[in-house]
Amino acid sequence: MSVYQFQVLHKDKDSDARRGQAHTARGSYETPAFMPVGTVGSVKGIPPWELEQTGAQVVLSNTYHLFLRPGHEVVGQLGGLHKMMDWPHSILTDSGGYQVFSLAKLRKITEEGVTFRSHIDGALCELSPEKAVEIQETLGSDIMMVLDECPDKDRDEEYCARSMDMTTRWALRCLEARRSENALFAITQGGMHTHLREQHARELALHPFDGMAIGVLSVGESKGMMDEMLHASISPLPEDKPRYFMGVGRPGDIMRAVARGVDMFDCVLPTRSGRTGLLFTWDGERQIKQARYKVDTSPLDPTCDCPTCRRFSRGYLRHLFVSGEMLGPILNTLHNLYFYQRVMRELREAIAEDRLRAYLGDNLERIDRKAEE
Amino acid sequence: MSVYQFQVLHKDKDSDARRGQAHTARGSYETPAFMPVGTVGSVKGIPPWELEQTGAQVVLSNTYHLFLRPGHEVVGQLGGLHKMMDWPHSILTDSGGYQVFSLAKLRKITEEGVTFRSHIDGALCELSPEKAVEIQETLGSDIMMVLDECPDKDRDEEYCARSMDMTTRWALRCLEARRSENALFAITQGGMHTHLREQHARELALHPFDGMAIGVLSVGESKGMMDEMLHASISPLPEDKPRYFMGVGRPGDIMRAVARGVDMFDCVLPTRSGRTGLLFTWDGERQIKQARYKVDTSPLDPTCDCPTCRRFSRGYLRHLFVSGEMLGPILNTLHNLYFYQRVMRELREAIAEDRLRAYLGDNLERIDRKAEE
Repeated sequence: MSVYQFQVLHKDKDSDARRGQAHTARGSYETPAFMPVGTVGSVKGIPPWELEQTGAQVVLSNTYHLFLRPGHEVVGQLGGLHKMMDWPHSILTDSGGYQVFSLAKLRKITEEGVTFRSHIDGALCELSPEKAVEIQETLGSDIMMVLDECPDKDRDEEYCARSMDMTTRWALRCLEARRSENALFAITQGGMHTHLREQHARELALHPFDGMAIGVLSVGESKGMMDEMLHASISPLPEDKPRYFMGVGRPGDIMRAVARGVDMFDCVLPTRSGRTGLLFTWDGERQIKQARYKVDTSPLDPTCDCPTCRRFSRGYLRHLFVSGEMLGPILNTLHNLYFYQRVMRELREAIAEDRLRAYLGDNLERIDRKAEE
Repeated sequence: MSVYQFQVLHKDKDSDARRGQAHTARGSYETPAFMPVGTVGSVKGIPPWELEQTGAQVVLSNTYHLFLRPGHEVVGQLGGLHKMMDWPHSILTDSGGYQVFSLAKLRKITEEGVTFRSHIDGALCELSPEKAVEIQETLGSDIMMVLDECPDKDRDEEYCARSMDMTTRWALRCLEARRSENALFAITQGGMHTHLREQHARELALHPFDGMAIGVLSVGESKGMMDEMLHASISPLPEDKPRYFMGVGRPGDIMRAVARGVDMFDCVLPTRSGRTGLLFTWDGERQIKQARYKVDTSPLDPTCDCPTCRRFSRGYLRHLFVSGEMLGPILNTLHNLYFYQRVMRELREAIAEDRLRAYLGDNLERIDRKAEE
């Protein structure tokens, strides 16, 4: 049995959006929630005491990366992931499945599991549903994910149907393998096939998972297709379990998915974009390296209360970026993380006050655009 | 006239060390002082609010780098260096001389000044004593340095003597050119020639500079030679002006120079070493990438109260470094900066209590060694 609990506190009257609260062994977090990504046990460039200030309540770490380096046993010897990275709040770990299918070489999939070569040193590794749970339990994850197969988005219906059935069997093996009281979320697949998406969600909903994730969307399909698949995956899901849309996305994508009833998100965008100088603001996305910012004394986003916007000018951020100074990515990332958490806070407030539609009407268009155009 | 003031508060009874206090337009700082280097207007990887916590009271920025990028006029348009980098405390800027002589290409030195090509884009630039002051005043520097010629350490006596005389004329032109009330420090040269060192210090001491710097040592000469030249440069200097040993050094070098009567230091070592995983501790220098630290749960330095040592294990620091995570250099740099400031604080206390010799006896050997040997 799991210590995980989830309650829907309020349902928006004009959409499928929900405002909720979840409880793990480490405390509670509010939904809709955005989880910054700390791939190998660090959110790139951001010490945990700064991360806390952004409002983040859950961090995601990648089982695949930690399994390869430093190794989950090493993390265990260093006291587990929370102690190692000094993050006392909740941590969600993925199962490693997605990275095996996107990063690793020479993978071979059987009913038993998957063998692959490390993208770091080519070492031959094996991952099975049981092993994925064991690794995540050694890491000390509060919310574990089942091992799933992630078929390419162009796979045909027959392949996706077979893969989906195996993913169900793998998910049930994960449930069996769990020894801890930590949460275990299932992952619905089904490729780009509406009826498979629905069928898989319906099947997985029969089992006692703590939450349901929607797997492998946002990998290059159109926004319309993403929305259709998301809707198909969500509609059969029970109301009383959290829905987690994996790897999504841009602020606008998150806003739209919240209206579809999604409760949890993770994405590398705020951190990765911070490093490439792409900054999210309420006037749209800004590319800080542009010459127009050279002597711009205004803050990146005048409405933002993050340390970057409170203290520095666009001109300075551009200078740091152009000069290749480490502080550039750090300040950019900090801003983006604050921005994402503010979006989530505003979404939660809008849902609580039954004005999500109006909120999206006011904000979606300006948040989606490029500020420079 | 300058607003700069300096007082020697106490002289150590067994050495030439002094405990003092200086005042600039931005506030006061205690000496002996260590100034972290913020080359282009950022101490690499460390936001100003963290830097403040380390105990740093003055930051050094490089005129040469800021002149080339973003350009001193741009810094001026962004409100000056303090506002741009959000550092409300004192800033010392070098004159650009050292970088012109170490980084720039195709330099040509005349009595008027120096022409050189930018190491960034090859642009032809000119720097004269007057221009060096103008740039530093545009940056808003609290403590400006005169333009000096920095002869290679192998230059013969005749060259050094001629160069030194020109550096004196340049220094006086800088004094003439000053329009602000900010401090201006002279720089004593003289190569590796004791009597030239003494002569130059004696000559410069006749003029109303706010402080005296010892230029271009610690460039590969032996520790004995460095100490001899330092002594020769310092002994003719007036007691009532601060002495600044430019670009020095390792913690042990700083301790020895403090005993010689030096009041101010700057060095890239704590920041640069942070990025290469070299960490200063009270048990000596540690190279964090070493395999011995893989599952080491102890803090980097158990006696250190910096955030890195309070929160993380050596094993985690090694993991971050080996994985190429940005947080590794950040946490390493933070520790090194705290370490340097603690050394300075302890030196100031030891001087105030007339126990510097005992303090150096207790600490020099262990701080100089490699912890792993």
